[in-house]
Amino acid sequence: MTDPRTSALQYAHEHRQEFLNILKEFAGIPSISADPAHKADIQRAAEWVAGRLHALGMKNVTIYPTAGHPVVYGTSPKAGLQAPTVLVYGHYDVQPPEPLEKWQSGPFEPTVRGENLYGRGVSDMKGQVMASLAAIESIVRTGELPVNIKMLIEGEEEVGSPNLEQFIPEHKDLLACDAVLNPDAGMIAADIPSVTYGLRGLAYFEVRVYGPSQDLHSGSFGGTIHNPAQVLCELVAAMHDENGRVTLPGFYGRVRQLSEEERRELARVPTDEAFFKRASGVPALWGEPEYTPAERVGARPTLEINGLLSGYTGAGAKTVLPAYAMAKISTRLVPDQDPKEVYGQLKHFLEAHAPKTVRWELQELVGGPASLSDRHSAAVQSLSRAIESVWGKRPVFVREGGSVPVVAQFQQHLGVDSVNTGFSLLDDGAHSPNEKLHLPTFYRGIDALIHFFFNLGSK
Amino acid sequence: MTDPRTSALQYAHEHRQEFLNILKEFAGIPSISADPAHKADIQRAAEWVAGRLHALGMKNVTIYPTAGHPVVYGTSPKAGLQAPTVLVYGHYDVQPPEPLEKWQSGPFEPTVRGENLYGRGVSDMKGQVMASLAAIESIVRTGELPVNIKMLIEGEEEVGSPNLEQFIPEHKDLLACDAVLNPDAGMIAADIPSVTYGLRGLAYFEVRVYGPSQDLHSGSFGGTIHNPAQVLCELVAAMHDENGRVTLPGFYGRVRQLSEEERRELARVPTDEAFFKRASGVPALWGEPEYTPAERVGARPTLEINGLLSGYTGAGAKTVLPAYAMAKISTRLVPDQDPKEVYGQLKHFLEAHAPKTVRWELQELVGGPASLSDRHSAAVQSLSRAIESVWGKRPVFVREGGSVPVVAQFQQHLGVDSVNTGFSLLDDGAHSPNEKLHLPTFYRGIDALIHFFFNLGSK
Repeated sequence: MTDPRTSALQYAHEHRQEFLNILKEFAGIPSISADPAHKADIQRAAEWVAGRLHALGMKNVTIYPTAGHPVVYGTSPKAGLQAPTVLVYGHYDVQPPEPLEKWQSGPFEPTVRGENLYGRGVSDMKGQVMASLAAIESIVRTGELPVNIKMLIEGEEEVGSPNLEQFIPEHKDLLACDAVLNPDAGMIAADIPSVTYGLRGLAYFEVRVYGPSQDLHSGSFGGTIHNPAQVLCELVAAMHDENGRVTLPGFYGRVRQLSEEERRELARVPTDEAFFKRASGVPALWGEPEYTPAERVGARPTLEINGLLSGYTGAGAKTVLPAYAMAKISTRLVPDQDPKEVYGQLKHFLEAHAPKTVRWELQELVGGPASLSDRHSAAVQSLSRAIESVWGKRPVFVREGGSVPVVAQFQQHLGVDSVNTGFSLLDDGAHSPNEKLHLPTFYRGIDALIHFFFNLGSK
Repeated sequence: MTDPRTSALQYAHEHRQEFLNILKEFAGIPSISADPAHKADIQRAAEWVAGRLHALGMKNVTIYPTAGHPVVYGTSPKAGLQAPTVLVYGHYDVQPPEPLEKWQSGPFEPTVRGENLYGRGVSDMKGQVMASLAAIESIVRTGELPVNIKMLIEGEEEVGSPNLEQFIPEHKDLLACDAVLNPDAGMIAADIPSVTYGLRGLAYFEVRVYGPSQDLHSGSFGGTIHNPAQVLCELVAAMHDENGRVTLPGFYGRVRQLSEEERRELARVPTDEAFFKRASGVPALWGEPEYTPAERVGARPTLEINGLLSGYTGAGAKTVLPAYAMAKISTRLVPDQDPKEVYGQLKHFLEAHAPKTVRWELQELVGGPASLSDRHSAAVQSLSRAIESVWGKRPVFVREGGSVPVVAQFQQHLGVDSVNTGFSLLDDGAHSPNEKLHLPTFYRGIDALIHFFFNLGSK
């Protein structure tokens, strides 16, 4: 008798066309979470997911309403109390498809061209949800799941998951697990599989500087009024020192330092200086000189100016001395920085540096902590070996610069790390026209997830 | 027999109601230069002015077409070659009246309420043109003009006088004179008559900083890219030192220093610290500490940020690392600074300070030199004594912070200084709804101009 893993892999290989067809069905639903006109499509996508979970024999399949779009849940507890439980996270919603005229085929008419499937959401992340479902199907059709599975597929990821923050703590028992599998992180390239074990946190602010009570004539007043646009620039300029370090008081106080072992591992990540120059088009990189680009993006906190606005910004010359200037300023955080503390640090900075010639306001817009999963945990090691089995090479371990608040929320409320992976590629055009999914990588991903479940179950 | 000056003044006093009625007729024409729909009204206003010059017996009355709105000219050469020639400058165009709903009476239905006449242009500057015409009428109806007069009344002042720059050098002989009277400058208050002998120049720029080839995800790239908004802020912040001095190399090299005598005279100007705080609403003033506010605005060059734009400026948080940042930056200049040199200074500053991590562009938008009239000239002294005769006090001598390019053009092309005065008040609401003209000041202004012509003619 063939062993269960081999049978499952064989089933997966034989059903690739069927998996592709099911994905095309899923990706054909325009479940655009940002657009209220697509509320019925959102509902249809949630029901489609619930239908798949039923078809896989899952229990307690439920569409949980929220204040926004519903959360779909289902569980397969048959592996028993001795086996680990994996919570598979995903989302069924997608970004708006605009600009429509740039699509070669309809965004919701998934179309294969060459090695790729094109359509909105095929990469981010209906294809990843499908890979998870296909891996589970391959196992349950040929034997028994070696782990317990819980599925949590939400419908608001593309609008910032506003209701998951409440749903997770309110359903702790329902979601209790040993590890989260989050296949919403991608790969750098088809031959560079990766596991993302770190995500940065975020603390996003708006700073407003007020000078005169209304815009003034720059001739009649210039020389007596501290121009709020100038004050704002002076404040922003003082937020970094000449080595690219953030000057907010205490900003680095809680930053966890990189070990030599972790730096060696991060050195395998191929996002080097040439990569960032090519990807950004800048003439030269910038940042803390003692860290590599991959370390600076993944393991070091940063402060960015996301927007500036003051005075006259149209064509030509208007000699106005502006009443007001505004900056959007965000910090990306690493463990163990606290967004609330960073708010206090920025407030103290402004109190210390803002001159008496202006008034100012500081508003906190968004915040969430960083997350870091244990690279040596059973789940991460199971995935690493799974990927090595399929790709023939160890994955690179990545600390991503972006923020995925749900990962921090799982850590906070469920006390579990997430294993962040996925089979989307950096050049898939997520959020852009002609979004694609690289099908050979998708099929490898299904295989890798089959290995993952067996690796984790055999621990 | 009464002396001619007394007769003229008596005529003026007896015809105040008639002058007011003529002004109401003039101000009833909606000669809005910015609005192509009012082209016929512009023509009507030009013809109205030409008609008044004819009525005063002027010669060579001509409506000169330009690429834009016409220039009205007329001359009274009867005082002869021995007498000085005064060129009276004015404009017959007005600002748009919007917002209409804020007007208590129609902007082009001039209405007297209390001591004021309300209507668009009554203060800026149809009332000032009318005061000049009334003074001349009062003299010519009772005797002979003691000076030769040339009138140059344009129709594009409110849109930046784009065609006068060409008209003046092309009509040097026609405009040749000993002094220009420009009654488009106003008074600080009804009991504070003033003569403006200095106006600042202007050099207005746009600085653009380019970083990545498109907006990037601030998480995925933050820490490796020199944010163009941050670079722009760093550049702008470096343009002033901690004492409020501009740091462009050589910026102060050609600045003419204030004499002790001039500083004493400027100390009489009542625009003190309390005035600027009240007028602007700022909690504290700013600027070069060794100069008074009036000196800083009138006699010192400044650099202002007129606008800032970069990245995301809407509501809420968008985690973008902007591709681009822009600042509108203008300098106000004093003699003998040269706008072209200031462009070079800003260029050198950017070459020296802009990092290699970005590209940048510098565009010059508008430029014109400062002007300074000799306070001790016959024309200025004639006006000063005229004002003293009417108000019973010496006028204050003001260096205005704003720029009136035509004054510099008269200096450049005709080689003559302008005597800048006028009988509009700071609170007249020029360019605003419910623009008004203070009639007692208007009538005093007519008297003062009669004195001015006689004072200058008796030199």
